[in-house]
Amino acid sequence: MGEGDVKGLMRQIGERARAAAVELSCTDPARKQEALFAAAEALMDSRPAILAANAEDLAYGAAKGLSPAMMDRLKLDDGRIAAMVEGLRSVAAQKDPVGEVIAEWDRPSGLHIRRVRTPLGVVGVIYESRPNVTADAGALCLKSGNAVILRGGSESFHSSGAIHACLQDGLRAAGLPQDAIQRVPTRDRAAVAEMLRMVEFIDVIVPRGGKGLVGLVQSEARVPVFAHLEGICHVYADGDADLEKARRVVLNAKTRRTGICGAAECLLIDRAFFARHGAVLVTDLLAAGVEVRAEGELAQIPGTVPARPDDFGHEFLDMIIAAKLVDGVDGAIAHIRRFGSSHTESILTENDAVADRFFRQLDSAILMRNASTQFADGGEFGMGAEIGIATGKMHARGPVGAEQLTSFKYLVEGDGTIRA
Amino acid sequence: MGEGDVKGLMRQIGERARAAAVELSCTDPARKQEALFAAAEALMDSRPAILAANAEDLAYGAAKGLSPAMMDRLKLDDGRIAAMVEGLRSVAAQKDPVGEVIAEWDRPSGLHIRRVRTPLGVVGVIYESRPNVTADAGALCLKSGNAVILRGGSESFHSSGAIHACLQDGLRAAGLPQDAIQRVPTRDRAAVAEMLRMVEFIDVIVPRGGKGLVGLVQSEARVPVFAHLEGICHVYADGDADLEKARRVVLNAKTRRTGICGAAECLLIDRAFFARHGAVLVTDLLAAGVEVRAEGELAQIPGTVPARPDDFGHEFLDMIIAAKLVDGVDGAIAHIRRFGSSHTESILTENDAVADRFFRQLDSAILMRNASTQFADGGEFGMGAEIGIATGKMHARGPVGAEQLTSFKYLVEGDGTIRA
Repeated sequence: MGEGDVKGLMRQIGERARAAAVELSCTDPARKQEALFAAAEALMDSRPAILAANAEDLAYGAAKGLSPAMMDRLKLDDGRIAAMVEGLRSVAAQKDPVGEVIAEWDRPSGLHIRRVRTPLGVVGVIYESRPNVTADAGALCLKSGNAVILRGGSESFHSSGAIHACLQDGLRAAGLPQDAIQRVPTRDRAAVAEMLRMVEFIDVIVPRGGKGLVGLVQSEARVPVFAHLEGICHVYADGDADLEKARRVVLNAKTRRTGICGAAECLLIDRAFFARHGAVLVTDLLAAGVEVRAEGELAQIPGTVPARPDDFGHEFLDMIIAAKLVDGVDGAIAHIRRFGSSHTESILTENDAVADRFFRQLDSAILMRNASTQFADGGEFGMGAEIGIATGKMHARGPVGAEQLTSFKYLVEGDGTIRA
Repeated sequence: MGEGDVKGLMRQIGERARAAAVELSCTDPARKQEALFAAAEALMDSRPAILAANAEDLAYGAAKGLSPAMMDRLKLDDGRIAAMVEGLRSVAAQKDPVGEVIAEWDRPSGLHIRRVRTPLGVVGVIYESRPNVTADAGALCLKSGNAVILRGGSESFHSSGAIHACLQDGLRAAGLPQDAIQRVPTRDRAAVAEMLRMVEFIDVIVPRGGKGLVGLVQSEARVPVFAHLEGICHVYADGDADLEKARRVVLNAKTRRTGICGAAECLLIDRAFFARHGAVLVTDLLAAGVEVRAEGELAQIPGTVPARPDDFGHEFLDMIIAAKLVDGVDGAIAHIRRFGSSHTESILTENDAVADRFFRQLDSAILMRNASTQFADGGEFGMGAEIGIATGKMHARGPVGAEQLTSFKYLVEGDGTIRA
């Protein structure tokens, strides 16, 4: 496709999305729900077609030499399709955010003011090779009354297409415009560049992918972006931690799944904890098969490897963790401020004052106490699904569910009320 | 100043703002309040110095040939200084938004989740020749725990400097960092361009000014922006309007003050209203000295002038209004969707179903019923003051007070809780 053709195509998609958004913004909640349940139904019924499309993508990916981790993200099976179906149903069952009264108050002038939720308009989602994002993002945007333009990674082209067809079935069943959920029908990367510039047609871009994609989006986008940086998550074991809770949480935060953005990448141990309990957290990790890149005294622990400076502030997404001794909660705070990515950090302590300090002085999207960073997830937060985890501070932050895909407007009622 | 010098200067300002923001984010509310009250005191005491600085600006403005409207905006007097003092005290007295628990809930996993307000970080305010913005913006940013970089119009350079000095006095009195409220100490326009690109140091830009400034900001900014478009506000008189309320509101919406963004710029009259009540709304406006640029049948009313097509969707900020007959609420909605700027629109009707349709189908930041559009103002909404009226949908919308200058974070508490 020539560059002009892509531009023309994307403008058409944008215009159709804009028109659908106007209709969606005042659609009856029951019809959106109906569309989501019907799409879930269609996904169940289309398993053979989806798996066949996915086989094509897997063959393409293998030929392209994708890493095993990438191939794993790309792969669909009955279990993963069932999880998508569950996600659609769960989003369908959520409360509809549009029209919700967020606040209301009266003024001495006699005015009654309500602040109510509205859709954002058109959302552009740019993601890499995880086909399930097609279902999650499509569902959340529809639920929140937004039209969406989906641009998945070229490796997942056929899988995303098959899933998108099911979402379209759902829209059709509920009598909603097909243009509510559009998918960019070309692998041409010029389409991404065009989306990033389409301020007339797209209200916000949600990038979901690795460093390269996020960097491109942040440097090129003219459309507002929900920033999604890496998840460089820290766990800090304070001197007043409960040993058994600490052991349990550290192991889970690192090893439950290493490839998700909520996985712990750095363990900070208070010198007081180390003096009291010794190497146990590190030896637990080693015993679980984790490579521990340790600094200072921790590097004396047999089985560890010495940390290099760039192991701190690094997202491994693997069975590797950086580890370091710090001086109390202030040492942990200073380290996290310097090396964190404002995603998720957890403190292990029984001391309320110390926990409060950690909560107040740090400003990550999610701060936890005595809990695994692996809970950084829209589903675990009760949002049904998530379109990603925002690490920026504008508009959305943390897990982005349907509610975070809304804006608001003020409805003001008087009785012939004029301003003096 | 050379371009490199401005860049270096702005980077220094940015670094200092970033450092101050970290400190401010966990400052005790009482100290911020103390700083605001002390700044109000300093403003009262510095009236002679402020008026002298303002006289310099007025002389500069006159020599530059500023319009009477611009000169009026630039001018300070005892009354306007008193209003600024009142604004500072009012912001000081508001509830502190930082740390407020917006929502909290429990999860089946055992986690307790709280969503609490946090400052955004560093706010850049770029404004034109209204010196009072220095006080309002400085106060609201401090209240919300943000550091602020103020860049006022070159015409108000000395006045803004004198007001800024009072804000600094307030910070000093409360022992807060002077860098919490900085002012760009040069008239060089390169400083504006630099602010728009300083993503490392500025979290959001609030532009406050005319079309030229807003356009520049929207096309050049790499930093997120709270969009502030024009206020092309509509008043729609429905067939079911109460005549006396309609007359009162239309007159107030247009004539109370014509230079503010909440002033009505277009009157839409339902054909049913016109059939019932005739030309009364138009003749009221004419009698008040308003130039009515009328379309179609309305142009037959003696005293009106025929509207040109570009009178619709135009912000006059003057004793001029465009006027047109429409077919019911749907006609009004269609017109506003085409010509509005998503700022404020008001419907005059006693019919609940019609009002509901207007409220649901339009998506302006503020929709009113039987009330004057001149109420589109942070003070009137109960926010103490405003930094502007946002017409975009990202993050802030409508009057931007201290609460809209915040983000949030999640505080999650468990008891050694791990994810299955």
